[in-house]
Amino acid sequence: MVTNVQLANAIRALSMDAVQKANSGHPGAPLGMADMAEALWRGFMRHNPQNPKWFNRDRFILSNGHASMLIYSLLHLTGYDLSIDDIKNFRQLHSKTPGHPEYGIVPGVETTTGPLGQGITNAVGFALAEAMLAKEFNKDNFDIVDHYTYVFLGDGCLMEGISHEACSLAGTLGLSKLIALYDSNGISIDGKVENWFSDDTKKRFEAYNWQVLEVDGHDGEAIRAAIKEAQSDKVHPSLIICKTTIGFGSPNKAGTAASHGAPLGDDEIKLTKEKLGIDYPAFEIPKEIKDAWCAKEQGAKLESEWNQLFAKYKEQYKDEALEFERRVNGDLPCDFAKKAFEFAKQLQDNPANLATRKAGQNALDFFSALMPEMVGGSADLAPSNLTMSKTSKSLKPGVVDGNYIHWGVREFAMAAAMNGIMLHGGFRPYGGTFLIFSEYAKNAIRMSALMNIPTVYVFTHDSIGVGEDGPTHEPIEQIASLRLVPNLDTWRPCDQVETAIAWKVMLERKDGPSNIVLSRQNLEQMPRTEAQIKDIEKGAYVLKDCAGTPDLILIATGSEVALAFNSAKELEKDGVKVRVVSMPCAEIFEKQDAQYKESVLPKAVTKRVAVEAGTTTTWYKYVGLDGKVLGIDRYGESGPANKIFELFGFTVENLVKVAKSVL
Amino acid sequence: MVTNVQLANAIRALSMDAVQKANSGHPGAPLGMADMAEALWRGFMRHNPQNPKWFNRDRFILSNGHASMLIYSLLHLTGYDLSIDDIKNFRQLHSKTPGHPEYGIVPGVETTTGPLGQGITNAVGFALAEAMLAKEFNKDNFDIVDHYTYVFLGDGCLMEGISHEACSLAGTLGLSKLIALYDSNGISIDGKVENWFSDDTKKRFEAYNWQVLEVDGHDGEAIRAAIKEAQSDKVHPSLIICKTTIGFGSPNKAGTAASHGAPLGDDEIKLTKEKLGIDYPAFEIPKEIKDAWCAKEQGAKLESEWNQLFAKYKEQYKDEALEFERRVNGDLPCDFAKKAFEFAKQLQDNPANLATRKAGQNALDFFSALMPEMVGGSADLAPSNLTMSKTSKSLKPGVVDGNYIHWGVREFAMAAAMNGIMLHGGFRPYGGTFLIFSEYAKNAIRMSALMNIPTVYVFTHDSIGVGEDGPTHEPIEQIASLRLVPNLDTWRPCDQVETAIAWKVMLERKDGPSNIVLSRQNLEQMPRTEAQIKDIEKGAYVLKDCAGTPDLILIATGSEVALAFNSAKELEKDGVKVRVVSMPCAEIFEKQDAQYKESVLPKAVTKRVAVEAGTTTTWYKYVGLDGKVLGIDRYGESGPANKIFELFGFTVENLVKVAKSVL
Repeated sequence: MVTNVQLANAIRALSMDAVQKANSGHPGAPLGMADMAEALWRGFMRHNPQNPKWFNRDRFILSNGHASMLIYSLLHLTGYDLSIDDIKNFRQLHSKTPGHPEYGIVPGVETTTGPLGQGITNAVGFALAEAMLAKEFNKDNFDIVDHYTYVFLGDGCLMEGISHEACSLAGTLGLSKLIALYDSNGISIDGKVENWFSDDTKKRFEAYNWQVLEVDGHDGEAIRAAIKEAQSDKVHPSLIICKTTIGFGSPNKAGTAASHGAPLGDDEIKLTKEKLGIDYPAFEIPKEIKDAWCAKEQGAKLESEWNQLFAKYKEQYKDEALEFERRVNGDLPCDFAKKAFEFAKQLQDNPANLATRKAGQNALDFFSALMPEMVGGSADLAPSNLTMSKTSKSLKPGVVDGNYIHWGVREFAMAAAMNGIMLHGGFRPYGGTFLIFSEYAKNAIRMSALMNIPTVYVFTHDSIGVGEDGPTHEPIEQIASLRLVPNLDTWRPCDQVETAIAWKVMLERKDGPSNIVLSRQNLEQMPRTEAQIKDIEKGAYVLKDCAGTPDLILIATGSEVALAFNSAKELEKDGVKVRVVSMPCAEIFEKQDAQYKESVLPKAVTKRVAVEAGTTTTWYKYVGLDGKVLGIDRYGESGPANKIFELFGFTVENLVKVAKSVL
Repeated sequence: MVTNVQLANAIRALSMDAVQKANSGHPGAPLGMADMAEALWRGFMRHNPQNPKWFNRDRFILSNGHASMLIYSLLHLTGYDLSIDDIKNFRQLHSKTPGHPEYGIVPGVETTTGPLGQGITNAVGFALAEAMLAKEFNKDNFDIVDHYTYVFLGDGCLMEGISHEACSLAGTLGLSKLIALYDSNGISIDGKVENWFSDDTKKRFEAYNWQVLEVDGHDGEAIRAAIKEAQSDKVHPSLIICKTTIGFGSPNKAGTAASHGAPLGDDEIKLTKEKLGIDYPAFEIPKEIKDAWCAKEQGAKLESEWNQLFAKYKEQYKDEALEFERRVNGDLPCDFAKKAFEFAKQLQDNPANLATRKAGQNALDFFSALMPEMVGGSADLAPSNLTMSKTSKSLKPGVVDGNYIHWGVREFAMAAAMNGIMLHGGFRPYGGTFLIFSEYAKNAIRMSALMNIPTVYVFTHDSIGVGEDGPTHEPIEQIASLRLVPNLDTWRPCDQVETAIAWKVMLERKDGPSNIVLSRQNLEQMPRTEAQIKDIEKGAYVLKDCAGTPDLILIATGSEVALAFNSAKELEKDGVKVRVVSMPCAEIFEKQDAQYKESVLPKAVTKRVAVEAGTTTTWYKYVGLDGKVLGIDRYGESGPANKIFELFGFTVENLVKVAKSVL
């Protein structure tokens, strides 16, 4: 008979050995959390190692992602497609076992973790998605959506501000199927946390309306009992504070920061194994231990039961079942592209000078009627971001029934929790804040891009057009900064037509996030042919052309497109042949073939001026050393928007002057 | 006899009228906080309106900065250089009363606020600086540093994650002279906060080791009593929860989000004034009310008493007093420039191949011995960032005695609190984290730049050289992104000599922040003449040249400088005339005169290649449409660093190939 301790020690053995072989990594946390992991994974986790994508599986998130060997050990031992050779390749180039758990690389990893605090916030998103989807699709006797979201987290996650944002909201919403296990080992990289982190965490989480339980994190029975108690609370999320020893078992390094981020060393591993009673060689887990860990049979059974349940559901609720399948597969509704294009065309035919944030709201009205999977929200700026559509229904505390999330003033948690919702499946989340406060959420936006998931960010008040709120609220470098994030599409539409197409493309996208940057102020609608409307999707296109080879190309985005357009008309009066290029999404333009790019920006035309109410630096890629950029490389001002635009030279008169200076 | 209520109502009158005249702004919060402000400012604030820079003044920070009319009213009424015409110019271009309180623009404003949560965090920095400076300079009977830091904050600040980071640390450190008054009005932009923010804030702050008091925020006496109680606690920071009504006094808008962010309207203002008993015209505060508010006489007395105290201190402790004056004035020690240069020269003469993070630590050893005002720290990465110098002494809970702050895993709070320390005076704070996590702190870094204050950020692990930790920890776009922030200098030195000069220039800087981006891995030291060492200060310089006009210029930074240098040697073998430009700080190079810039990057030489292990986009500014950039526009990988560099083409062989392709 294999004991729970022996099972936990198998995790410890693999973790120590893999870190040692890689000569890099974090052994302390897996050693400390092994008992927690054994209790949860063997006692409660409902999953199928042979199908990591089985929809109704419990979700497990390792928020303290540096403890990656813990999850790799679990995935290997329970039977996922992660072999002992993969474990031996820990932290090697192109291995399935990278330094931190990576979504899309490691089968069974639900989200990429490492940047502290974001895993627990992803988990809030997962739990929220589960609750919303269950509310929408479950029927009497058909709980087709019914799983827990478990998360492990450490002191670091709890110090990060985002943990406050996420856990406060989770408590308010009453996400009772969210169960967090806190690896409370009292040690962080600098040493004993009591010198910089002396929170009463139980009290803190009770203040958030969580159930809080405290156990010895090396007492499997106590942990099991706590998880049961957590499951039985149908009103509050639960935090189980597990008192643990970092580097558990290591005679000389346990309980110290020395075990955190470096291999224990061969000698210390030997001593640790002796102490723990691990008598098998490195990477050679005895068969009886592996057998006891194996969850394949149980997993297949669980999935098969669910499949039967779903088949019956499908018999009884055919439309719902088909819709559920579409949603879970992330398929767009029928004729999406056609309908979306028609919508844009209609707007072209019915011109209106609108703020693009208002045009965005109109687009939301259209698209969310078409796609009930759209879940909206804003970080307490709904009336400013205009993120509520006609179909929006606000979530309320306690009963998660709706499709609009008032995130509160919590930009970072909004972004990271949206990633969790997206990863869970069944929804297309979008969330808004002022463009300037994209900075509060920056690393979560990056994580969407790194994970290749199509989270959508809505950033309004996109320039000095903010006006009176002044430089703290006026974005300058933010658009450029977002454009630098690999795999993130940044849209800055100039009118309601480009806004509609931007939403179309963002919703069609499957392999990465997008953000749409919208104006506070009204913008003039541009004229376009049908072919031009189609070209918006290519990221940049010729909006206004001249006969023959242009003397000059003006490139503009968003609120500066009309300025370029009107300046071109002035320049034409002086006989200058001007082309105006609207570039609502530079990233997508970059992906076009060489021929299309040449057709828009011919190499032969080197006289170029870019105009955008933001940082100039990144535009030199398009205008070169001979071109000029009309932009802003200083902070904004507080005052009426039109006066600020004038002050910074965003007038036809000045753009004409700049343009002539390059000719 | 003027009543407290009438005095508070003067704030209300000015706030309503100014917002109405500007037709823009936030009346609700000033109306709600007027009684709190009257109680604090008339009952407790020790300040001198005629000298807003009197060093020992109490500091007042309006963390909910959108309530700017509250502080403008207070400054105007108590006698600061802020006239009624300034109030009438609220939110107008170039006025002294911008939309949000701006440091450096408005006399009496201690820090720029608006981005929520940062004001309370600045306040933690102020209180920490006060405690550290008092510990260092006060003597028996000479409390020359002895003031409170008061902060007003709202629901928004408390929802933001940074409030958790900052207040948790303030509680651990026991900053008992920090007194926060929470405007608990239950309303945010989206409506009643109970639907998204239902924390038990009292319990939450008790969990942080704060004293928490609760009062009716419209009961002046109760507020006064609470502030007294807060002052009497010598162990804990205090939070006074003031239950208030947003838009207090407005018959139709009080208690609703409608009063938050838009003018009340003339009719509603009339009704409000009637209800409050305000019977004087707009912008015409009656003399007896103004007289009762005026704090000039009292302020002059307070400052004069302190001046006498300091004069006596100076008699008795001359050296300390002179040092105190130097520190408070922000003057560098004698011969700083000369000594710093000698230090760099010595390093040039004693070459060593070091990681620049290690070179940074050596520089810290040197500079912090010279400058006791340097206060270091790291967001729980001291052993990795190498931010502790030989003179570092860690702060411990309870007794603020030391010069090194273990911030915990709290990057954003570290940055914003450092801004507070800097603004307080007496210190030069620097703080470290991994470059990738600069993103967590981004908006606070921007705030340093917007406020023109020389906070220093130390970012190590600056590229794919991070290696095994993988893409979550490998910066790609972060250096470029930091370079886009106006008024922020970004240094990326290539060896110990450039690192030393970078520190010299960062410490000499007075008008804005700097960050230094350092490698994890060892870097080869470059050869230099004395003239070249001097040119490092110019941000970019010719590190290696050829005879005559170069065929090609290679531009590099940090870890890629040696690569460029060694590639140039290879190219020379093939007869190519190559110049290598090291550009450790592009922002400073941009400020050089045209002649120097031309001498480094002659316009005639258009064959250019930039090489940097990061985003390529921003380099086109220097290489143009004809040049090439060897960089990285995708995410990194987990694996040994040398293998990743090879994979991404950072080899002499590949750089030579790229260089030849432009020739």
